[in-house]
Amino acid sequence: MINKLIENIKKTEAPIVVGLDPMLGYIPSYIMEKAVNDRGETLEAAGEAIWEYNKGIIDAIYDLIPAVKPQIAMYEQFGIPGLTAFNKTVDYCREKGLVVIGDIKRGDIGSTSAAYANAHIGSVQVGKTKLSGFHEDFITVNPYLGSDGVKPFIDVCKEEKRGIFILVKTSNPSSGEFQDQKVDGKPLYEIVGEHVAKWGADCMGDSYSYVGAVVGATYPEMGKVLRKIMPKTYILVPGYGAQGGSAKDLKPYFNEDGLGAIVNSSRGIICAYKQEQYAEFGEKNYADASRQAVIDMKEDIAGIF
Amino acid sequence: MINKLIENIKKTEAPIVVGLDPMLGYIPSYIMEKAVNDRGETLEAAGEAIWEYNKGIIDAIYDLIPAVKPQIAMYEQFGIPGLTAFNKTVDYCREKGLVVIGDIKRGDIGSTSAAYANAHIGSVQVGKTKLSGFHEDFITVNPYLGSDGVKPFIDVCKEEKRGIFILVKTSNPSSGEFQDQKVDGKPLYEIVGEHVAKWGADCMGDSYSYVGAVVGATYPEMGKVLRKIMPKTYILVPGYGAQGGSAKDLKPYFNEDGLGAIVNSSRGIICAYKQEQYAEFGEKNYADASRQAVIDMKEDIAGIF
Repeated sequence: MINKLIENIKKTEAPIVVGLDPMLGYIPSYIMEKAVNDRGETLEAAGEAIWEYNKGIIDAIYDLIPAVKPQIAMYEQFGIPGLTAFNKTVDYCREKGLVVIGDIKRGDIGSTSAAYANAHIGSVQVGKTKLSGFHEDFITVNPYLGSDGVKPFIDVCKEEKRGIFILVKTSNPSSGEFQDQKVDGKPLYEIVGEHVAKWGADCMGDSYSYVGAVVGATYPEMGKVLRKIMPKTYILVPGYGAQGGSAKDLKPYFNEDGLGAIVNSSRGIICAYKQEQYAEFGEKNYADASRQAVIDMKEDIAGIF
Repeated sequence: MINKLIENIKKTEAPIVVGLDPMLGYIPSYIMEKAVNDRGETLEAAGEAIWEYNKGIIDAIYDLIPAVKPQIAMYEQFGIPGLTAFNKTVDYCREKGLVVIGDIKRGDIGSTSAAYANAHIGSVQVGKTKLSGFHEDFITVNPYLGSDGVKPFIDVCKEEKRGIFILVKTSNPSSGEFQDQKVDGKPLYEIVGEHVAKWGADCMGDSYSYVGAVVGATYPEMGKVLRKIMPKTYILVPGYGAQGGSAKDLKPYFNEDGLGAIVNSSRGIICAYKQEQYAEFGEKNYADASRQAVIDMKEDIAGIF
């Protein structure tokens, strides 16, 4: 699946991923009203509205981008109907040829990590039948529990040729509280990065590993160091745009082959029509506003090479 | 909800929590076969079998214990039908008066952490209607992303009078890989523990905080230190029984008031009928075997005081 991701990136000439992280406040009122008219003020209405909103955006942008990253929390908060919308979104994106990175940040130990891996990038067996609960191509994984917690995910990656991105240095202001703590002079995120490189070494696609890393755009100096520590690791870079990272900060995350990183934008794309810059599109054309925002982001990022 | 947990512990005289972590291999064949006959080899059959199996155990043990801890990964692997079984289990346990600790180990940043908190211990709003997707009393939280990631959970705890247990030192063999790394001579888990104590200080029940911690039974020396660092923090202790922790290791986790810790057992209780010790009960009486295993665990743990 890392090969497919790279192929998609080359084809679209866009090392970007669009975060499908819907909030009800982002959804145009006509979509929300129709859902509530049909189903009342229910979780089902929220799920239906999210799915309609997502579908509009996906239809408008799928030919421009290699991948999407739905944030499962935004669906999980609406319970079963929300997760049903998550599944519909994932399946629809895959039908459109997009690589789907489930931003689920799961992490546990042993058989529990294996259950999460089977849930999202693997399968379970009922009797003689293999079945999948969720259907992402990649997922994000939290490493706090150590190798026991991460290995079961990697086993499933090998078997299914799917992938993971492990949190190394997150984009938020307080990420340093634990991640930057110095161990014999070396920050913890570097130690985690070394583990990621090691874990990924025996799980290689053609040129990059199935085991990637998350490193926030908001810390470019650290990104530069981590790029060197993990040369064969694809880096998923959140924090561009709304969170404060700019294009000029992104260069250190890429290798000299122009590959090795994929930059996420969520709100900046999916809620473009609410920004001054794209306000002229209006609510009815929210998906066209998202398309224009993707085109502008591609241009912005192309400028760094 | 921490007051309710303590009240339940005092009433049952049992500082224990039963992990409802069903694997299909644990489920008696007559339950599994009925589900597959009714629904085929589907995720729905798995969900139905899990729910029937759980209900038998809950009916057999609810009067003996204060709380249960369903591990969501074991349900999530069966997709939407699995999570439907999770919801039914949580709701049924609450009807029976049990405190429900959702072992979900979520953690993200800002609005995403808020979404997870709203999903599991809070609510969302659709129009003018407040709704809940999942309905636990407590959940477990991963702290790797720092305060930004944890604070949104604490905000919901305050509002809803529900609680969280933050991972400090987990029970698995490789938990030390990152958690034990020494920062100026002090292991990271102690630094996390200090944060937990600080975060919990402004979120107090009558005698303990709504913000608890997870510390594995497999590391009693560390448990002793953490008990002192977090005097008002309830400690959820996994790793007893199947993972190798024994009753004599548990004393340091408790305060002098005999409170302050709650010990989890999962497999040891829910899959008791497959152990030699309880084999005489047989598959048909799996729930009675679980009841006997609870009685034995209570006695074992009472012996430490």
